[in-house]
Amino acid sequence: MNYKMMGRFLSMILAVEAAFMVPPALIGLYEGAHFTALAFLIAILVGLAIAGGLALFSRGAAKRNFYAREGLLSVGIGWIAMSLVGCLPLWISGEFPNFIDAFFEIVSGFTTTGSSVCPNVELLSRAVNYWRCFSHWVGGMGVLVFLLAIVPAGGKNAGFTMHLMRAESPGPDVGKLVPKMRQTAATLYITYVVLTVSDILFLLFGGMSVFEAVCTAFGTAGTGGFGIKADSLAGYSPYIQWVCTVFMILFGINFNCYYLLILRKITGVLKDEELRFYIGAVVASVALISINVFKIYGSFGETVRHSFFQVASIITTTGFATTDFDLWPTFSKIILLILMVIGACAGSTGGGIKCARVLLLGKSLHRNISQMLHPNKVQVIRVSKKPISEQVLSGTNAYLCAYVIILALSTLVVSIEGKSFTTTFTSVLACFNNIGPGLDAVGPSCHFGDLSVLSKLVLIFDMLAGRLEIFPMLMLFNRRAWKRH
Amino acid sequence: MNYKMMGRFLSMILAVEAAFMVPPALIGLYEGAHFTALAFLIAILVGLAIAGGLALFSRGAAKRNFYAREGLLSVGIGWIAMSLVGCLPLWISGEFPNFIDAFFEIVSGFTTTGSSVCPNVELLSRAVNYWRCFSHWVGGMGVLVFLLAIVPAGGKNAGFTMHLMRAESPGPDVGKLVPKMRQTAATLYITYVVLTVSDILFLLFGGMSVFEAVCTAFGTAGTGGFGIKADSLAGYSPYIQWVCTVFMILFGINFNCYYLLILRKITGVLKDEELRFYIGAVVASVALISINVFKIYGSFGETVRHSFFQVASIITTTGFATTDFDLWPTFSKIILLILMVIGACAGSTGGGIKCARVLLLGKSLHRNISQMLHPNKVQVIRVSKKPISEQVLSGTNAYLCAYVIILALSTLVVSIEGKSFTTTFTSVLACFNNIGPGLDAVGPSCHFGDLSVLSKLVLIFDMLAGRLEIFPMLMLFNRRAWKRH
Repeated sequence: MNYKMMGRFLSMILAVEAAFMVPPALIGLYEGAHFTALAFLIAILVGLAIAGGLALFSRGAAKRNFYAREGLLSVGIGWIAMSLVGCLPLWISGEFPNFIDAFFEIVSGFTTTGSSVCPNVELLSRAVNYWRCFSHWVGGMGVLVFLLAIVPAGGKNAGFTMHLMRAESPGPDVGKLVPKMRQTAATLYITYVVLTVSDILFLLFGGMSVFEAVCTAFGTAGTGGFGIKADSLAGYSPYIQWVCTVFMILFGINFNCYYLLILRKITGVLKDEELRFYIGAVVASVALISINVFKIYGSFGETVRHSFFQVASIITTTGFATTDFDLWPTFSKIILLILMVIGACAGSTGGGIKCARVLLLGKSLHRNISQMLHPNKVQVIRVSKKPISEQVLSGTNAYLCAYVIILALSTLVVSIEGKSFTTTFTSVLACFNNIGPGLDAVGPSCHFGDLSVLSKLVLIFDMLAGRLEIFPMLMLFNRRAWKRH
Repeated sequence: MNYKMMGRFLSMILAVEAAFMVPPALIGLYEGAHFTALAFLIAILVGLAIAGGLALFSRGAAKRNFYAREGLLSVGIGWIAMSLVGCLPLWISGEFPNFIDAFFEIVSGFTTTGSSVCPNVELLSRAVNYWRCFSHWVGGMGVLVFLLAIVPAGGKNAGFTMHLMRAESPGPDVGKLVPKMRQTAATLYITYVVLTVSDILFLLFGGMSVFEAVCTAFGTAGTGGFGIKADSLAGYSPYIQWVCTVFMILFGINFNCYYLLILRKITGVLKDEELRFYIGAVVASVALISINVFKIYGSFGETVRHSFFQVASIITTTGFATTDFDLWPTFSKIILLILMVIGACAGSTGGGIKCARVLLLGKSLHRNISQMLHPNKVQVIRVSKKPISEQVLSGTNAYLCAYVIILALSTLVVSIEGKSFTTTFTSVLACFNNIGPGLDAVGPSCHFGDLSVLSKLVLIFDMLAGRLEIFPMLMLFNRRAWKRH
């Protein structure tokens, strides 16, 4: 096991995180929440101390190969360490009642879930609210990806960076945007920043304050869903709601598509099967839900706005709400539940199983049926005309398997505390798919604070497993992964 | 398409079914329900008329090969035809209010689901109750398997029988009990009859009337779950309940194991991984539920009896009940829901995904994780030390895929009528896995009669898809399957 290399990376993550905590500390000072600012300062110092210690320990690393399993383990540990340090300001400042709640909240932030344990976020300081929303932004595209964008990669680090990138990027296969990893990571982040800034400008134009616009855009960009208002986005103007709807949809698209657009390969984007599937699912869901909920809102405009917003929010796994969809008819709720599971496109900031995987699973099912009809015909599965290797296919099947098993076991453990079936099942679904709100007692107008510590721990695992696409988290519990080669 | 061969088989199915309807007709005469007896007579005549017509049409069949897809289509059509004729007595006698209810009830019977649309089964005539329970018995082991046991197979029919057997037998792979198909089918039915008769004797010993014992044993053997009492088995003595518990468990075991026992290959049975998994799941579930529900029943004996009975009833997908488990705590309900999905052993009369498939999916997930650790190692999956072909594995993955898709789409359509989320979801789960009762408005103390016609049609499809392991039903909707070669 290449512990030194892992230590080196962990040290870099924590150093970067410490830097990220400077703005909220300053915000705390500016708004006069001195105790909260102090809490951020302590967290920064703790982060830097650990980072320094790890840097000392890992001097002279990278002397030998770095394996896939070490990449997987590094990502898992990195995210947990980042969350443990990141939750300190929330806990120390006393704005969250205990450590487990603070930890749940920041994991929910980094994993872009958006499930909150806080009954009323309007009572939190601006510093903490900024940090919650910023955690979505950086968690959405990935902290390690960010690191890769700023750290010199090539040479001995090459294998390392590839494995990390593969472990942190969402989707069945890492689409190599551009051959060089560092350039890939930088391109991703530049696109991400440009889109986020556009979102902020559109929101400012609608009359939001700078603070609100930045926080809302962070939540939208990371497809996170933490709000800074108790009623999420219900109190804002239709214009603001439409801006959020459009940007949620945009951030749910595979960033490959934006890269192709930059290269002016527009036909490549139009022929992208995953994009078509994603847009098709959105349009169909909006249509069906609009018909179903029309009697609730009465007017055509309002019906479409609420339907479109909620569909965009759920399929991209953001979790913002403009209306309490727990009050919608069962048919609409089931559509939203199905969208929760499908999720956004691979290579976006969204969660869920991902459209690409759903497409792949559908095609592999179709091939199996074809083979029953013509047992001797060899058939290759293609997505967007590109052949898919059997290895990717078998990985996708394993993913579905692991998904179902984790869903079942998590639901079982969370059920111990005896909440209703709908609450139990949808709390797991909402966390595992990084959405945020579920139904019933964890619906959009409720929060996760009343759950037991055991349930919160399970949901924390689910959020991390959902964001890191399961396997890095499973590896942590695999004895053989830790063995020395 | 070999229409003549298909016609011939359809004709045989309906002729056999007509013969099976003679006993209930006689029971109707005996109990004085003359109108019901007449209804059975009409159904017998209709069945014979269609069978005769088909026999005329299919003279000179079997002149060319019979393909897998034709086997799949025959099984799908055969089961639908059998249900259409089998529901006639229920409808004509007026004991069921309309055709769709009668059809739902008999499909629920043949598929061994046991979901009833009847609010009070004690008001039905004995003839109809006998027919409902008998449909479980014959549906459990399979009508076509029965046919194979009595019809000369070899020669030109060989390919046909193999494809039929493969399409109707539950499990990922058809274990060839004995090389010859007909002998296989006969062995299956003899074991089945011996076990059923033992069950009847044990029940008679507990003081049941002959009629009750026969009906209850039919429901147990087929792992169906239709009761002849409104409170299922709650009103019977603990002895009777224990007898049912043990026999449900026995009928959920792969019939291969009994064959090995006959051959005195006891070590083969003890080393059967699926059997171990099945027994392990039962024991673990009983233990967990007993702890969870102890406070409801108070006494140790009663707690274990109810827990064991409900676990056996649900994992074998029978659906009998001795207590209203909808009133149990959420934890116990989630365990039962997980058992619903797992189901019994392959090659038994039970439904669900089957233990063998769950085992296989778990092993394939484990292999995928191993391959992440050691990418260049070739690993073969073994169950009970036998290597599993990649084809069976890919078929199992396709099955899981199809299972999830059908579950999601069915839930969506059933949700249109606006019942609660729990009712909607568990009604589909209970029908698709051939269990019977769900939770909430379709719980063990309720019935399916209040659902809309659309929902009933979807659930009928699900019951058939669940019993025939999905693909024969999917084929019916595949345009290419119907094309001429």
